[in-house]
Amino acid sequence: MNAMKSIAKKTILKPCFLLFTFGIILLAAASLYAAESDAELINRAKAIFGPLPASMPSSENPITPEKVKLGTVLFWESRISVDKTVSCAKCHPLGLYAVDGLRKSVGNNCKENPRNDPTILNAASQISEHWIGNRTSVEDQAKQALIGPPSFGMPDYGSVEKILKGMKGYVAMFKEAFPNEKDPVTVDNFAKAVGAFERTLVTPAPFDEFMQGNAAALTDQQKRGLRAFMDTGCMTCHFSPFVGGQMYQKFGVFEPYQKYTKSQSVDEGRFAVTKNPADKFVFKVPVLRNVAETPPYFHDGSVDKLTDAIMIMAKIQLAKDLSPAQADDIAAFLGSLTGKIPEAALKVPVLPSSE
Amino acid sequence: MNAMKSIAKKTILKPCFLLFTFGIILLAAASLYAAESDAELINRAKAIFGPLPASMPSSENPITPEKVKLGTVLFWESRISVDKTVSCAKCHPLGLYAVDGLRKSVGNNCKENPRNDPTILNAASQISEHWIGNRTSVEDQAKQALIGPPSFGMPDYGSVEKILKGMKGYVAMFKEAFPNEKDPVTVDNFAKAVGAFERTLVTPAPFDEFMQGNAAALTDQQKRGLRAFMDTGCMTCHFSPFVGGQMYQKFGVFEPYQKYTKSQSVDEGRFAVTKNPADKFVFKVPVLRNVAETPPYFHDGSVDKLTDAIMIMAKIQLAKDLSPAQADDIAAFLGSLTGKIPEAALKVPVLPSSE
Repeated sequence: MNAMKSIAKKTILKPCFLLFTFGIILLAAASLYAAESDAELINRAKAIFGPLPASMPSSENPITPEKVKLGTVLFWESRISVDKTVSCAKCHPLGLYAVDGLRKSVGNNCKENPRNDPTILNAASQISEHWIGNRTSVEDQAKQALIGPPSFGMPDYGSVEKILKGMKGYVAMFKEAFPNEKDPVTVDNFAKAVGAFERTLVTPAPFDEFMQGNAAALTDQQKRGLRAFMDTGCMTCHFSPFVGGQMYQKFGVFEPYQKYTKSQSVDEGRFAVTKNPADKFVFKVPVLRNVAETPPYFHDGSVDKLTDAIMIMAKIQLAKDLSPAQADDIAAFLGSLTGKIPEAALKVPVLPSSE
Repeated sequence: MNAMKSIAKKTILKPCFLLFTFGIILLAAASLYAAESDAELINRAKAIFGPLPASMPSSENPITPEKVKLGTVLFWESRISVDKTVSCAKCHPLGLYAVDGLRKSVGNNCKENPRNDPTILNAASQISEHWIGNRTSVEDQAKQALIGPPSFGMPDYGSVEKILKGMKGYVAMFKEAFPNEKDPVTVDNFAKAVGAFERTLVTPAPFDEFMQGNAAALTDQQKRGLRAFMDTGCMTCHFSPFVGGQMYQKFGVFEPYQKYTKSQSVDEGRFAVTKNPADKFVFKVPVLRNVAETPPYFHDGSVDKLTDAIMIMAKIQLAKDLSPAQADDIAAFLGSLTGKIPEAALKVPVLPSSE
């Protein structure tokens, strides 16, 4: 009987002990798995996106404090536009993450621009500027905007230089920014100064803290969204620390975009630049930093809601139907790309006197 | 001979001594006169203009930090205009001393406003707002601008409130600014918040240091200009610490203004408000603080140069022909009214999210 009891006791205790041990191991494994999962997610993210640089330098236009100072002032200057109402800041108001919130930007004399306003935050990181890549750099964009008919609308570069030379304050600042030049007040130097300013406009965000190893920087939903963003394939085009801006891609790989957007007309995209039929409906993949704060979406600003834009992109670029919950998750992740605008850029400079 | 010599010596020495003494006295008197003159000038100026206050309070709309914070944000808000391009900051860019530099401001859809853009710096100090005094206060101006056809152009106040209520960030800020109200997101509170912000926009200038007793705060030319400003009679209308804004006056007391300005059309001024024939061509006397930085001049922006504006004013308001040198002196004095814009107002606030 004793032996029986002992056996019985053992047979009862042993499974209990095993079950307990197994439970402990399971719990440990689960917590280990969770920790690994965050770490793994961080590592995957780092491999695809990588660390955000402090600025976006250019060997052709080195960033100097004097150029940035001048560029910051010129960014706000409206007296160099044909109707004196257009400055860089008009279409790129920094308080709205440097977009105007319109479907298409409006320049001098209420002229409509051909496409939606891309933010200038993090913009200098891209392979080119504008939706169709018809500007080679932020400097090129700044310069050409001066004579762009729907932007500043000036008749020629000489007219801009004449106005700037008429303001003593600018003459002094150009001299400081370009000390070795005899005649520094030029539109090329305007472009370099504005470009240097723009090259400082990097916006570190919670997602960067996450990639630096702080798993708590993203909420659970944002982590799910990050996974969905990568697993769905969005990062095939939206990679790099700027989450885009590094390549061109056809908008509407699987289906024409206008089937899902509310586009008023069809834009042939980069074809206008290259005349290559392969570039029809091709656009530059936009930077997604601060995207949650820069509606409306797409090259024509035809979609107002971020979740709608996400579902359309999955559908026509990747032939995937996201659930509304997945789109919400991805939107939450994209919200973690909303960053801090440099304090210096949020200061309004007092402009030189007119006389 | 000795006596003769002695007399001769005395007769030569005595006049020399007297001349020397007289010279010393003259020099002393001159320096005393100069010192008195500065002190006298300071006293005269203090009596006419008086000390600049730190802000422009209102018993109807007490300035609170929460209201100012909200007002600063709303000042930059363009999403509450009919074409989403108009914010207070559009016509009142702080980097240009809160004027747009146009002859007449341009609002939504490129609509021209009836008159030149008055700065909002120091504006709350005035008896009323707008050139013809058809706004009772900065709050009234801010509110009415929302539905002003050539400004924000919204169809009604309810539409503005609906947009603001759709942005969570604003709902929270209105609650903070108006903590005892059940439904704080109203255009009246918009007006109070923007008004509270504007009531902080006082710009201390070298002229204030001068009135505080620092004679070196003005150059000799500026002092001559100040004397000319007072002696010519400009201060008959341009008095108070804000150098204007305290009364209405006919523009063209001695001769019709359009005889000297480059006015495209004749504006009957305050007559439009009161329908009193005595108010024909009557306008509010503008504040002259920062006037050197806010061309073009007059209610229709018809004159570009400050010295031209000064000479025209002397001619048609006071029947006096100033010499170009006197006009230069007065312009130099007016330059001493260019003040320091409060740092807080020069910071661009990041606006609430659209969704």
